[in-house]
Amino acid sequence: MNNFIYDIPTKVYFGENQLGNLGPELAKFGKRVLLTYGGGSIKKMGLYDKVVAEIKKAGLQLFELSGIEPNPRIDSVRAGAEICKKEHIDVLLAVGGGSTIDATKFMAAGALVDFDPWDFFSEKWAPLTDALPIVSILTLAATGSEMDAGGVISNPKTKDKIGRVERPMLPRVSFLDPTNTYTVSPYQTACGASDMLSHICEVYFNMSTDLYMLDTVMEGLMKSIIKYAPVAMKEPDNYEARANLMWASSWAINGFIDGGKRQAWSCHPIEHELSAIYDITHGLGLAIITPRWMKYCLSEATVSKYVQFGVNVFDIDKSLPAMEIATKAIDMFADFLFKTLGLKSTLSAVGIDDTHFEVMAEKAAGIGGTKYGFVPLAPKDISEILKMSL
Amino acid sequence: MNNFIYDIPTKVYFGENQLGNLGPELAKFGKRVLLTYGGGSIKKMGLYDKVVAEIKKAGLQLFELSGIEPNPRIDSVRAGAEICKKEHIDVLLAVGGGSTIDATKFMAAGALVDFDPWDFFSEKWAPLTDALPIVSILTLAATGSEMDAGGVISNPKTKDKIGRVERPMLPRVSFLDPTNTYTVSPYQTACGASDMLSHICEVYFNMSTDLYMLDTVMEGLMKSIIKYAPVAMKEPDNYEARANLMWASSWAINGFIDGGKRQAWSCHPIEHELSAIYDITHGLGLAIITPRWMKYCLSEATVSKYVQFGVNVFDIDKSLPAMEIATKAIDMFADFLFKTLGLKSTLSAVGIDDTHFEVMAEKAAGIGGTKYGFVPLAPKDISEILKMSL
Repeated sequence: MNNFIYDIPTKVYFGENQLGNLGPELAKFGKRVLLTYGGGSIKKMGLYDKVVAEIKKAGLQLFELSGIEPNPRIDSVRAGAEICKKEHIDVLLAVGGGSTIDATKFMAAGALVDFDPWDFFSEKWAPLTDALPIVSILTLAATGSEMDAGGVISNPKTKDKIGRVERPMLPRVSFLDPTNTYTVSPYQTACGASDMLSHICEVYFNMSTDLYMLDTVMEGLMKSIIKYAPVAMKEPDNYEARANLMWASSWAINGFIDGGKRQAWSCHPIEHELSAIYDITHGLGLAIITPRWMKYCLSEATVSKYVQFGVNVFDIDKSLPAMEIATKAIDMFADFLFKTLGLKSTLSAVGIDDTHFEVMAEKAAGIGGTKYGFVPLAPKDISEILKMSL
Repeated sequence: MNNFIYDIPTKVYFGENQLGNLGPELAKFGKRVLLTYGGGSIKKMGLYDKVVAEIKKAGLQLFELSGIEPNPRIDSVRAGAEICKKEHIDVLLAVGGGSTIDATKFMAAGALVDFDPWDFFSEKWAPLTDALPIVSILTLAATGSEMDAGGVISNPKTKDKIGRVERPMLPRVSFLDPTNTYTVSPYQTACGASDMLSHICEVYFNMSTDLYMLDTVMEGLMKSIIKYAPVAMKEPDNYEARANLMWASSWAINGFIDGGKRQAWSCHPIEHELSAIYDITHGLGLAIITPRWMKYCLSEATVSKYVQFGVNVFDIDKSLPAMEIATKAIDMFADFLFKTLGLKSTLSAVGIDDTHFEVMAEKAAGIGGTKYGFVPLAPKDISEILKMSL
């Protein structure tokens, strides 16, 4: 069992009508606020007006950057960092899903350096030692960016999509109001659930001796997502379902469940290569990859973890032979993603063929470090998983 | 479902050999450190020497207060607050179990006021708005004081034992090294497990609509405690068992599992009256009271929660009739406490008769607010539960 440091000081206002706390929280960091958001859905749902009203009520000065794209791009980061510098921004307020929050994190870091923010991701891997304070208002339960210190940025020119986790980017305060996710479509709800499940699987599937109590927490989170995602798809304004998904999204990746487990992630690096080239939705790519990865990694050496997964998450009869439980668990997981959530089940169904498999496999094994994963994956293993996903 | 604010910024160093971080963490708060501890077991186990060495290495000035008793008393709090004032202490370092940490919290608060610290608990209920920073090194997995803002203090003169939770008393940093609990006796290990289970039951048994995902977390914590407490009793230096118990102790009460559930606790106020008068071990008192409370509160209106408890924690066949599952669950819980952990099962076995039942019942219903609990308890209900426990 490894040592670890637990340190998650993000303050979370959870529930409806908590925005009265927004102004005072922002004001702790200064007067000049950069509001960042995506394509304008926050205007349609009325959230934009409420946020602006609170900022004005607190006597703060508002600046804006909109148009942050899904799979957020380095150009947005550059634009945001520029505004921060030019306008002497004190605090950034990200209103949106993981893409908006991720991009905002690197704007907050880019604001404090005199080089191009892409240097944070390029071979230079420039030091990221400080960032302006970040507050978030979450509108999509998926990436967990609201309570972790990481983000992923795409560069369409270099066809890179690269993640980085650095402490200064941890949001100071996040507002999680389940009603702000009522307008999330069934498809995006499904993709969000897939993303969360994948975050948990990347940690859960691990052969190191560790804290069993955290395994029970992960199983509980997975059961919660499996229980509530279909409800939220059918009844978009079911508060209980949205609330459980929202709080699960944060705890799936905020660091708590790791508890000292050290291992590189596997499915995320592979999926990042897919969406870097094809710009597909992250959660959809993960749904296609993850069950194939599970199948590929199953062996006598790893089967015990699958048995635990099958028995505790899918309630499979524990008296069955281990391999049978494992196979059944993978099938039930795939059925949940493709039948219950209705996500497309193959790469070909989303228009991806094997053209770039070799390049993607090399990159995922390199930058993504999949060779240090649950089952170490070399490029040839990743190619195999991609072929299984076709 | 209620709104809530999640805000648990305590930084935790978990694992072996993390004390190298102690000096730098203390130094963030200043130079003058008050080290507090209990009866000297930290000297026997060699922890005292290590702590003092780290403090000296960091160039800090050391002051000491030892002799903090189990069920810590207001006189210790007074003594500590006095030292803080006289010596201009910057930070308090509590090394011990919940009693030492609890007492240290109120010393830290008492240091900043000019009245007697008992005023924090007496009818005056004096404001507690600030405290010196607190760092803890935990040596007993039980109360969760290392990661929460509460504490309980006894006043033998008034026969009061009163708890209070105030934000400024939240430890800033806590060191959780499972090997520091290797010397905890089987009996104290059992009492600690009982205390943790009771913390969870006080929240879990709740009829309000809430976050199901947190119910799964609570069930996982309970399963972990039930799995590992007997292991730690038989093999005191089993790292895995001690680590799981230790981390479970913090999460059983740090506020996460509440997630907006609002309800007064029931068993703790009743037990506080027992140990206020008879000075018995808190976890033992809870073990005796809790199953009787469960039995007393079981009805057609509450049975569904017991069914969930029985099926998910004790793996009872869910096809049985609800009342049968509930009764079986209570029996299995009692068997775990009294047979597996070997705790005494009745008040008479620990030398308590019904002499003070009426007074205790009145006090628990008053100060403890049991009338706002899972099943509202008036003094006559508490008397009944106490009689069932004889």
